[in-house]
Amino acid sequence: MKRSILFILLLALSMQMHVLAQQQIDLEEVTDAYFLKGIGILNDILSMPNDSNIPEQLVANIAWCEENLEKRGYSTKQLQTDGAPLVLGFREVPNAQKTVLFYFHIDGQPVDRKRWEQEDPYQPVLKKMNAQGKWEQIPMSSLSDDYDADWRIFARSSSDDKGPFAMFLTAWDAMVDNEMMSNFNVKVILDFEEEIGSPNLPAAVNKYKEDLKADMMLIMDGPRHLSNKPTISFGARGISQITLTTYGPRAAQHSGHYGNYAPNPAFRMAQLLASMKDDDGRVTIPGYYDGINLTQTERDILSQVPDDEGEIKSKIGIGTTDRVGGTYQESLQYPSLNIRGLSSGWVGDEVRTIVPADATAEIDIRLVPESDPERLFALIRKHVEDQGYHILDDDPTDEERMKYPKLIKWEGSISYQAFRTPFDSEPGIWLNKAYIRAFGEEPIRKRISGGSLPISPFVEALDNIPAVTVTTVNSDNNQHGPNENIRLGNYKEGIKTALAILTQPL
Amino acid sequence: MKRSILFILLLALSMQMHVLAQQQIDLEEVTDAYFLKGIGILNDILSMPNDSNIPEQLVANIAWCEENLEKRGYSTKQLQTDGAPLVLGFREVPNAQKTVLFYFHIDGQPVDRKRWEQEDPYQPVLKKMNAQGKWEQIPMSSLSDDYDADWRIFARSSSDDKGPFAMFLTAWDAMVDNEMMSNFNVKVILDFEEEIGSPNLPAAVNKYKEDLKADMMLIMDGPRHLSNKPTISFGARGISQITLTTYGPRAAQHSGHYGNYAPNPAFRMAQLLASMKDDDGRVTIPGYYDGINLTQTERDILSQVPDDEGEIKSKIGIGTTDRVGGTYQESLQYPSLNIRGLSSGWVGDEVRTIVPADATAEIDIRLVPESDPERLFALIRKHVEDQGYHILDDDPTDEERMKYPKLIKWEGSISYQAFRTPFDSEPGIWLNKAYIRAFGEEPIRKRISGGSLPISPFVEALDNIPAVTVTTVNSDNNQHGPNENIRLGNYKEGIKTALAILTQPL
Repeated sequence: MKRSILFILLLALSMQMHVLAQQQIDLEEVTDAYFLKGIGILNDILSMPNDSNIPEQLVANIAWCEENLEKRGYSTKQLQTDGAPLVLGFREVPNAQKTVLFYFHIDGQPVDRKRWEQEDPYQPVLKKMNAQGKWEQIPMSSLSDDYDADWRIFARSSSDDKGPFAMFLTAWDAMVDNEMMSNFNVKVILDFEEEIGSPNLPAAVNKYKEDLKADMMLIMDGPRHLSNKPTISFGARGISQITLTTYGPRAAQHSGHYGNYAPNPAFRMAQLLASMKDDDGRVTIPGYYDGINLTQTERDILSQVPDDEGEIKSKIGIGTTDRVGGTYQESLQYPSLNIRGLSSGWVGDEVRTIVPADATAEIDIRLVPESDPERLFALIRKHVEDQGYHILDDDPTDEERMKYPKLIKWEGSISYQAFRTPFDSEPGIWLNKAYIRAFGEEPIRKRISGGSLPISPFVEALDNIPAVTVTTVNSDNNQHGPNENIRLGNYKEGIKTALAILTQPL
Repeated sequence: MKRSILFILLLALSMQMHVLAQQQIDLEEVTDAYFLKGIGILNDILSMPNDSNIPEQLVANIAWCEENLEKRGYSTKQLQTDGAPLVLGFREVPNAQKTVLFYFHIDGQPVDRKRWEQEDPYQPVLKKMNAQGKWEQIPMSSLSDDYDADWRIFARSSSDDKGPFAMFLTAWDAMVDNEMMSNFNVKVILDFEEEIGSPNLPAAVNKYKEDLKADMMLIMDGPRHLSNKPTISFGARGISQITLTTYGPRAAQHSGHYGNYAPNPAFRMAQLLASMKDDDGRVTIPGYYDGINLTQTERDILSQVPDDEGEIKSKIGIGTTDRVGGTYQESLQYPSLNIRGLSSGWVGDEVRTIVPADATAEIDIRLVPESDPERLFALIRKHVEDQGYHILDDDPTDEERMKYPKLIKWEGSISYQAFRTPFDSEPGIWLNKAYIRAFGEEPIRKRISGGSLPISPFVEALDNIPAVTVTTVNSDNNQHGPNENIRLGNYKEGIKTALAILTQPL
C-alpha cells in the first residue's frame, strides 16, 4: 500500500514536471521565433526622440503607439490633460471575466549627446563587449545569424521604458499568431510625461476612472534585482520634495568685514539639517517613522530577496551604510529624508571670500504607504520652527529681515504617494504561476521598490486596485544617463515574461 | 601775577591756533590747486587693464609706475618673484634721519563687463546721482568749472587701489612744487598680485629685506569708516583657507534605490560643520579663541570707533548678529571660521533626485595676531578626527572607501598672518599730528581691520616694523564688484591726507 501510494505520487509528480517542461519549452520556442521581429519593433520605437521636456517630440510617439495598438485590434482613446495626453488602449476578449490594466511610459530623459558614445541616442546601435572590456559597435545585421545574450542595444529609453512596451507588443503578436489568446480583457495606459514627474496624470486618472477600470494593474517598468533574476515588485515608494533657503546678509558680504558678525546662512543650514538626523542617518524628528513596525513575518519576506550587501556596498563604494533599517530591503520600508542638493556661495575655481547671502537645500522624501506626506511635512515644519525659524513662502522683505532673527523659505510639493500590494493578492498569486511556467521557479518578490512610480493615483482612483510591477530590464542599463542600453538576454526574457503573463489564465 | 600768566597762556594758545589754522588752510588750498592735475593722474592710471589673473595686462602698469616714480626723482628696482615682480621706488632726502615705506597694490579684481553700467570698466567715467537716485554719466570736462564732492569716478581699481596711489603721486607733486619737502626718505613698494592673494610676496619680501628696510610702513589701501570720517587702522586680520570634502557613494546614486542606505555626504558635511559652532556663531572647538582676553582698556579703545550698529544691520539686512564679540569692533578681534561656499549635488533647475557623491565646504579663517593659523588648523583637524573622520589629502581610493566609515579630504593653506601695531607707536603718534593738521581733529582709530592685507610678511621680515593703514576711499565704493568707484570728496581728502603725512616732520 505504502509502495503504491509512493508510486502514484511519483507518477503524478513526473507528469506534472512533464507538463511544466512542455509549457516552458513552448514559451521558450515561441519567444525564440519572435525575437528578431521583437528587435524590429524595438528599433522602430527607439528611433523617435521622446524628451518629455520637448512636447513636439512626443507627437510622433503618440501616433506610433496608437497605430501599433490599433493594428492589434485595440480601440484607443486619448485622455486629455493640461500637458501631453495619456493614451488608453482597450482590447476586449470574448467571454472574458476580468480586465488587466498594463502601464508603460513612452517618454525618456533628456540626452546629453556629448556624453553618448554613439552618434545619435535616438538611433539604436548594437554593441558587444570586446576583450578590453569596452563596448564596441557591431552591425545590427549580426543578429540574423545568431547572437549572444550579453550583447546590448544602446539608445535612449531602450530600458526605460520603451523596451518593455516593445516586449509587450512582440509577446502580443506571438500570442495571437499561436492562437493562445488571453482569457482576460487588456487595457494599456501609456504615459508621456513620466520623466517630468507625471504632473498631469493624477487629475486625468481621476477624470477617466471609468475608462481605466480594471481588476488589477501591472506596471512594466524598472530593472530586475541586481542578480538579474526574474523579479516582481509589490509596490513603489512615493515622492515629495522640499526646497529650503536660509538667509544671511541681503547681499553677499566681504568675509573679513562681516565674518563673526553677519550670521552665515550656510552654517545656519548646516545646523538645521544636522538637527534632523542622527549619525546613523535616522531621522530624529519625533513621529517621522510612525506606523512602521515590521513584524517578523514581514522581515522574513524581506530577507527572501537575495541581496548580497557586500557586493552592493563594494559596487557603489561605501564602507558603511545608514542604519534606518537593519538590511538593504528593510531600509526601503521607511520614508527617506535625502539632501539631493546643497548650495551656498561658490566653491572651487569660483570661490569668493564672502559671507554668502543665502543657502539652499534641496530635499527629497521617498514615501511608503504609512508615511502620509502631509503629516511628514507638518512634522518637519514644526521641527524647523522649534529651531527658532520663522517660515516664509517667499524671499524675506527688508521688514521681515529686521523682525525675525532666523528666517527660512519653504517650498514643498507632493508628487504622489506610495503604493503597496500584498503578496497573496490576486495578481500576486496569478503572476507567481506565470513565472513558474516561464522560468520554472518563483520570481524574486520585493515588498516595495526604492524608486517612485506614479501609480498611487490609479490605486486611489480605481478603488484600491491591486498593482504589481513586472520588471524585466538589466539593472546596469544606465537608465537616465548617457549610454542607456538593454541586454539582449533581458529583452528576450522580457518577451517571454509578457507572453507567460498574457497566456496565464485568470 | 595770575592775570599775566593767564594772558600769556591765552596768547600762546591763540598763536598756536593761528598757526594750526594757517597750516590747515595751506593744505586745503594746495590740495584744491592740485585736484584737477590729480584727476588727470587718476584717469591715466585707471586706463590700463590690470587683472592680476592675466599677467600680460600688468606689463603696461608696471612700466607706468616705474616711469611715474622715476620722473619724481625716485630710483626704482623690480623685485623678481615667481610671478609678477614687485616694484620698489626709493627717494632719498638729504639729511633725513628716517625712512617711511608706503605700500600700494596696482592690480585689480577681474571685471564682468555685462554687469558694469559703462562701456569699459578700464575707461573712467564721471557720474552724478540724478533725481531718481541713479548714477548718470556726465562729461569729465564738467570738472573744469566746478564740481560736487558727491560726484564719483567709476572704473576698476578707482578705489582699490590705484586711486590711493594717484593721490600719493598728486600729493608728492604738490609738496615738491610748494617747496615743502618731507624730512624723511620715502620708499614705495607696489604689489601687482594682491588681488590673487600675493602668493609670491612673502618670499620676495624676505629676499629683499635690505632694500625694503624702513622705520615704519604705511599701507594706503581700504575704505574709511562707514561714517566716511578720516580713519586709520592699526592692523589687519590675516587669512587662511580650508576646503573640506565628504564622501557618499563613488558616483551619485538614485535616491529611491539608495536613500536610507548609502550615507549622504551633504548630511555628513552639515553635521560636521554644525558641530563647529554654536547658535551664536561662536566656534565651539576648545582653544580656538585662546590668548584673546580683551581688557577694559582695549574695550574702551574699540568703543571709540563711532559705529552705528543699527545702521550696519539695516544696511546689510540682518535682524540679528553673531555674538563672537559684544560689539562689531569686538567681533573683529577674534579669528573667524566662515563658510564661504558649500556645494553638493545640484539645486534649482539642475536638481537631480540623487544621493550625491560628495559635498564640498569652502572655509576661510580670518586671523588675529593671537591666532597662529598652524595652531587653529591642528585644533580643527583634531575636532574633525574626533567626529570619527579619517582625513585624506586626496580623493579616496576604493580600498579607503571600504576601510574607513567616514572619510574627508582636507586641503588647507595659510595665506598670511595678521598684524597689529600699538596706538602709541611712533607712526601712531606721528600720524595723529598729521591728521590734526589736515582735518583739525584726530582720525577714527581702528585696532584691527576685518579684511586681510599681505603686510605680515613685511612685519616679519623687517624686524617688526610698525605698520599702519591709512584709509581714504568711500566705504560704498563697490570694491571687487561691478561699478567700482571713488567719491570725488574722498579723492580730494585723500590727496590732502597724503600731503599732510608727507609734510609732517618725523
